[in-house]
Amino acid sequence: MRPPGGRERVAILSGGIGGVKLVEGLQELLPPEALSVICNTGDDQEFWGLHVSPDVDTVLYTLSGLVNRDQGWGLDSETFQALELLERYGEPTWFKLGDRDIATHILRTRWLQEGRRLAEVTAELARRLGIGCAVIPMTDDRLRTIVVTPDGELDFQDYFVRRRFEPPVEEVRFDGAADATPSPEALAAILGASTVIFAPSNPIASIGPILAVRGLRQAIAQAPGLRVAVSPLIGGDAVKGPTVPMMQSAGLPISPLGIAQAYEGLIDALVIDKQDVAFKPDLEAQGLRVLVTETLMEGFEGRLRLAAEVLDFKAATTR
Amino acid sequence: MRPPGGRERVAILSGGIGGVKLVEGLQELLPPEALSVICNTGDDQEFWGLHVSPDVDTVLYTLSGLVNRDQGWGLDSETFQALELLERYGEPTWFKLGDRDIATHILRTRWLQEGRRLAEVTAELARRLGIGCAVIPMTDDRLRTIVVTPDGELDFQDYFVRRRFEPPVEEVRFDGAADATPSPEALAAILGASTVIFAPSNPIASIGPILAVRGLRQAIAQAPGLRVAVSPLIGGDAVKGPTVPMMQSAGLPISPLGIAQAYEGLIDALVIDKQDVAFKPDLEAQGLRVLVTETLMEGFEGRLRLAAEVLDFKAATTR
Repeated sequence: MRPPGGRERVAILSGGIGGVKLVEGLQELLPPEALSVICNTGDDQEFWGLHVSPDVDTVLYTLSGLVNRDQGWGLDSETFQALELLERYGEPTWFKLGDRDIATHILRTRWLQEGRRLAEVTAELARRLGIGCAVIPMTDDRLRTIVVTPDGELDFQDYFVRRRFEPPVEEVRFDGAADATPSPEALAAILGASTVIFAPSNPIASIGPILAVRGLRQAIAQAPGLRVAVSPLIGGDAVKGPTVPMMQSAGLPISPLGIAQAYEGLIDALVIDKQDVAFKPDLEAQGLRVLVTETLMEGFEGRLRLAAEVLDFKAATTR
Repeated sequence: MRPPGGRERVAILSGGIGGVKLVEGLQELLPPEALSVICNTGDDQEFWGLHVSPDVDTVLYTLSGLVNRDQGWGLDSETFQALELLERYGEPTWFKLGDRDIATHILRTRWLQEGRRLAEVTAELARRLGIGCAVIPMTDDRLRTIVVTPDGELDFQDYFVRRRFEPPVEEVRFDGAADATPSPEALAAILGASTVIFAPSNPIASIGPILAVRGLRQAIAQAPGLRVAVSPLIGGDAVKGPTVPMMQSAGLPISPLGIAQAYEGLIDALVIDKQDVAFKPDLEAQGLRVLVTETLMEGFEGRLRLAAEVLDFKAATTR
């Protein structure tokens, strides 16, 4: 673990699987009180009244060590017995709620029903799982990512899980964004951070909802710390998921230039892959500091390495 | 299956394990539309906001064939993965919610939250499990069995499951009974029945809550059909559960006389075990018709046999 260094405070904006790898690396390197993870809740959805927060849960399960390492989300040793009986009851079961996972949803839903805020509930879940850093939903309000396709307007999970992100993406929009305010915890984390990191997540569907919370976007635009995005693209493609078609739907080029455009006015620096080194001059011409490295995080070592590089880059650029 | 016989309509008041055996026998012998099961909901309880109806579920699982035959309640091939994670979250886990079982509670809770009545929700669960007869909670209202012990006033599940019915019983009372009205379905079943059967369940904690619903008690008192109770006692003891200490707390003798006393004014006939034949004259002196038989239901054959005897007894006594 790095020495606290007095002032180092990192806030990272994160979506699901890809982003969480970097979060896990940071968790290893920073003292718990120095790290805040601001999570996308745009793909939250209710199933049978249970509040499911897929991206938050991926963070919780990864940081607590309970995650299914093979798939990068969900729980280790998971079973699907409840789902099997729900199917017997004739219920739709395309969203694969695991038995262990259900425990999290039951608690979250219960506590929300008791009137606690989503940020409070999330903090309590994290605490009980022994997670030391702060896990923070971007907002306590309802904001939902909607994917507009030729098949109609789809809830994110419907598009992503049920239809395996196969329908062409015409547009991505965020229901409730106009009324959503940042969770106080998220706001404090951004404004108190010496570094704000944009994880290598889908800029439209993972980081997009976070930036769609107007007050949070403003805070990031005015944040006193260094703001560094890690590009999720490598050589014109994404490691996985619908990043490419979503960026295309937003008219963004599929390169670090598109990432820079998506985060225009919000970042000071960009970490790009070696394969994309050719874009460095253009990015620098836009006033961005650029770190070129291997952004693919292979195994735990890869996570540690990239996290360390991002933190060192910060140190180097602000010295 | 017996021929419908035009008019035969059976309503049975039932608690959990013991009573359900007779219900299962009746299900085999009667056409589905001729059988209504009126279930105790006094031991319903919420766990993490999930509405659990233990006696209703024992009926649902038994009649659908999903029940764990070895224990007589819960589901076959049940697992406890959600419970394990709830424990990891530091939650109390003395109530052993199974993963498959949770599916039922999730659906019930969801539908109740949508504003449907408990009787509607129960009918829908039964229908989806392919159960043909009517499974009816005694009331849509909240009525809770409270066991008064030297350790304090305990919720029924706290007394029964958590403390394994070990604390001495001082009194059993029913919270909410003053305001509870019968479900319309229960009322219709009682008033339309040619036979009302009191299953061999605990007269205090299983049948007691049903009779504590004033309108239902009145309906039974005025029911046009023959009213037959099957004694849960054999030779001064119960097959299982806290029937004896609860009857003692109510000042009832632990014999068919105590059963007759518990149901005074509500029954016309009593089925007692051969071991209790000595009580027959006293019971008859009270104006009750008495059938003496083997009331222990061993296996499926035993359930069929007793059900057939009760139905034939009805036929014999009304001829």
